[in-house]
Amino acid sequence: MLSVFALGGVFEVGKNMYVVQYGDDIIVIDCGSKFPDETLFGIDLIIPDITYLQENADRIRALIITHGHEDHIGAIPYVLKQLPMPVYGTPLTLGLIRGKLKEHGINHSNDLHLIEPDTEVQLGKLKLSFFRTNHSIPDCVGLAIHTPEGTVVHTGDFKFDLSPVNRQFPDIHKMARIGEEGVLLLLSESTNAERPGFTPSERLVGERIEEAFQRAKNKIFLTTFASNVNRLQQVVEAAALTNRKLVLLGRSMVNVVKVAKELGYLDLPEGMLIEPKEAANLPRERVAVLCTGSQGEPMAALSRLATSTHPLLAVEPGDTVIFASSPIPGNEKNVSNTLNHLYLLGANVIHGGSSATGMHVSGHGSQEELKLMLTLMKPKFFVPIHGEYRMLHQHRFLAESVGVERENIYILRNGDVLDIQNGQASRSRQVTAGNTLVDGFGIGDVGNIVLRDRKHLSEDGILIVVVTLSSQDNELLSDPDVITRGFVYVRESEGLLGEVGRLVTVTVEELQEAGNEWTWSMLKTKIRDSIGSFLYSKTKRRPMILPIIIEV
Amino acid sequence: MLSVFALGGVFEVGKNMYVVQYGDDIIVIDCGSKFPDETLFGIDLIIPDITYLQENADRIRALIITHGHEDHIGAIPYVLKQLPMPVYGTPLTLGLIRGKLKEHGINHSNDLHLIEPDTEVQLGKLKLSFFRTNHSIPDCVGLAIHTPEGTVVHTGDFKFDLSPVNRQFPDIHKMARIGEEGVLLLLSESTNAERPGFTPSERLVGERIEEAFQRAKNKIFLTTFASNVNRLQQVVEAAALTNRKLVLLGRSMVNVVKVAKELGYLDLPEGMLIEPKEAANLPRERVAVLCTGSQGEPMAALSRLATSTHPLLAVEPGDTVIFASSPIPGNEKNVSNTLNHLYLLGANVIHGGSSATGMHVSGHGSQEELKLMLTLMKPKFFVPIHGEYRMLHQHRFLAESVGVERENIYILRNGDVLDIQNGQASRSRQVTAGNTLVDGFGIGDVGNIVLRDRKHLSEDGILIVVVTLSSQDNELLSDPDVITRGFVYVRESEGLLGEVGRLVTVTVEELQEAGNEWTWSMLKTKIRDSIGSFLYSKTKRRPMILPIIIEV
Repeated sequence: MLSVFALGGVFEVGKNMYVVQYGDDIIVIDCGSKFPDETLFGIDLIIPDITYLQENADRIRALIITHGHEDHIGAIPYVLKQLPMPVYGTPLTLGLIRGKLKEHGINHSNDLHLIEPDTEVQLGKLKLSFFRTNHSIPDCVGLAIHTPEGTVVHTGDFKFDLSPVNRQFPDIHKMARIGEEGVLLLLSESTNAERPGFTPSERLVGERIEEAFQRAKNKIFLTTFASNVNRLQQVVEAAALTNRKLVLLGRSMVNVVKVAKELGYLDLPEGMLIEPKEAANLPRERVAVLCTGSQGEPMAALSRLATSTHPLLAVEPGDTVIFASSPIPGNEKNVSNTLNHLYLLGANVIHGGSSATGMHVSGHGSQEELKLMLTLMKPKFFVPIHGEYRMLHQHRFLAESVGVERENIYILRNGDVLDIQNGQASRSRQVTAGNTLVDGFGIGDVGNIVLRDRKHLSEDGILIVVVTLSSQDNELLSDPDVITRGFVYVRESEGLLGEVGRLVTVTVEELQEAGNEWTWSMLKTKIRDSIGSFLYSKTKRRPMILPIIIEV
Repeated sequence: MLSVFALGGVFEVGKNMYVVQYGDDIIVIDCGSKFPDETLFGIDLIIPDITYLQENADRIRALIITHGHEDHIGAIPYVLKQLPMPVYGTPLTLGLIRGKLKEHGINHSNDLHLIEPDTEVQLGKLKLSFFRTNHSIPDCVGLAIHTPEGTVVHTGDFKFDLSPVNRQFPDIHKMARIGEEGVLLLLSESTNAERPGFTPSERLVGERIEEAFQRAKNKIFLTTFASNVNRLQQVVEAAALTNRKLVLLGRSMVNVVKVAKELGYLDLPEGMLIEPKEAANLPRERVAVLCTGSQGEPMAALSRLATSTHPLLAVEPGDTVIFASSPIPGNEKNVSNTLNHLYLLGANVIHGGSSATGMHVSGHGSQEELKLMLTLMKPKFFVPIHGEYRMLHQHRFLAESVGVERENIYILRNGDVLDIQNGQASRSRQVTAGNTLVDGFGIGDVGNIVLRDRKHLSEDGILIVVVTLSSQDNELLSDPDVITRGFVYVRESEGLLGEVGRLVTVTVEELQEAGNEWTWSMLKTKIRDSIGSFLYSKTKRRPMILPIIIEV
């Protein structure tokens, strides 16, 4: 029996991880992370729950990585620490993974396997082949898994850039061949399923960048995602054409340029790169700066330039700042903040994403490209992947429009298993799937109670009451101590906190006078209730109330 | 001398409050609030710092409210509690203010003054007149303040809707007359200063709504801002045309419809409004629902409908849901979440704002309208207001393009005073201005220290260590108590917390053995340092560490 499911990546954007299992052979595809939203206080990263893989570790033949973006490689260090697997990827993808493993002090170099365009791998009963696609990072692949039940195709992220900057053309002929030989099941990405038309070629961005470089009179600052190596290449070419030296700012920009250059993905003329401090000795019109911060991230290079807190360089009046990017939903405010500061510095700012400036194009195929992929593969069964429900839902309509039977389209949630046997598909089983939260060194050790406490603490702070009782007769040995953090200013609230202390004393005495047996837990509850309603009536706030009883 | 400044509303969006002062006469314009961003943990609302007004209370002649949106009226209850002032507004504006004051238990009805189109008010040496404008709420005005130094015009929010739904035409002739008589200083709003062209008329939205109502086969749910009474009117008309009854869901929708109907701003056919429970007895094609939740607010009616948790009504397959709105930056994720749920319920969803669907138009004038206002008023001095710097900055260029002298344009920060005397302007003074934070009943009692603590608590929680010392010899009377909240799961971290306890004991003993004089504050610092670095090395987290020393 063939079984296919997602451990991450459907009903969400990010955290991609898919599993194809035939009998005793498991292929895992991608191992991504995603960023927590603002309700997950203090959490650094979200990765897939890999319980199923841990329980079936002996069956896992390979982890295939389709490309080097964080939503496809970000969980690798955390997962490999718990569950070593052979990892397969193209040269740039493996280059980025190596850097990540090194940072985490993981030695896995013996089990990293290179995928070349014509690579074929036999793993147990499964044979894997790959096809090149285009995306906003070079060296992307989709894969075909040939199983005795039929062929499963996973596209990875893709667009059809028919005039790619690096001349890594999409391997349409191979896709057509795979389709012609017969595809049982297609898993295809849905990011832009709501966007009509055909995503423009990355080359358009290059033309706009060149024009802007030719018009700019002083320094140029350009920000984009560091991993968009083809865009970096076009910046290099515009800089060369306009006789500018190039400065790199931001850790990920420096890293990616280093890896991409070493592996031959970025062609940098001799002597073009200079150190930030050398820029000071050049005329302003000879300098271009490639920097991080396209999403307004507060600690990134461009944000520090915008607030004049970058130690090495400054944006001056008349400089040009180019956002070769669109704000990702959720980042609009940070980007806007950066823009305000740049205008205050007197910069000419070019921003606004694709429609306004042509300085950005998506890395994902729009509706016509998704239909082209479906047409090339002409699958019997179809599962839209990578996206929230609204995107998967639209992708279903696209699949129907090119002739996939409606009843053969399955929208799966993470953990929903699609079983296929003798050409019949069924969805009735689930495996464990979910979010594993990373906080510092802790993987999965922060859950709902800790998060609920953090939320509570963030809203109204904490009030701690220490009650010291005599072990002989349970009498109060001193006035209760009242300590707060994040609730009110102590200096201005001495009266209020004094009243809290007296109320605690009264509560303890009442309990003692009632004469009945009482427990510490009863006392704590009584303190929480009386202080809680007192404080709410006075402040309309509900701090966490933590009674501590010390018996001496 | 004439002095003009903002106490809120520039270098930000929201919290509008402007002051015009001539000698001993002060006019305050608007009294708005804004919502806190996610860095202001637990804060309910931000209002202007009114220190200046409190210090000059005897000079204040009036608070003029230009219209009834929260960024213009939201701070009124908080400000009036501290500083009673005569309040002037148009009928709908006063209607909304009355509701707000009632909620806060404030009786101010003797000092609410009606503005009619031809109202003129003499206040000290100042004469005020008003002109009607259009916006996304009815009954908006701009005002002209005639001072011995010259006339100051404040536009309020405006667009030029030349075919307004309610036939409240913009009073262009009066604006022209004011301009012709001479305007010394114009304060004009900048919200859409970055948007080229002319904002479409609200009527266009009505046409789209009518089409959608005619096409819809089952129930219709339409969400928009409740205060957009003209849009509500168009929904009423579409419902009447397609023979549907109307259900209102959401507190602000019910409130605004009530006030607008009573005051004659909303024309509702007899018997059109029905209760939610009556809808169950009607065929689905006879029902339209007007509901809150256009920004995906988790507790709003549409969000509860989307998650099938609304107690009264349900979205069923084939129902139509219309977002007559655009997501405000920052709300994209919440809106997207609502969309996912609505699609899962099988609804036909119409969303995407103005460009995609025509279901929304802005309430603010675009560049050509801002230029039209500048042209009508032809001011000597110009101060762009309402907006972040990027918008004020663009508005400056627009003013220059219609002939305002560059050196006569002032971009002010909140508190920057523009003084004008004998036709000469200067900017050299500041008055107190800033954010006053509202948290529960507290106005301005939460500041940086409390917020910093809330942020710290939200990230890694708190660890409390109680050390009980003998008052005789400072010996430890028992093992330290270690309590955490929001840091780690206690049950899974017993080992870790045990080590913390032992480390505290060691720290106390070391201090005692050193033999020198020591203070509690030294002990606390030592505990914080040793536990802090221990926990970071083990968990890479930095909880707040709170040592409590009890002497018995």
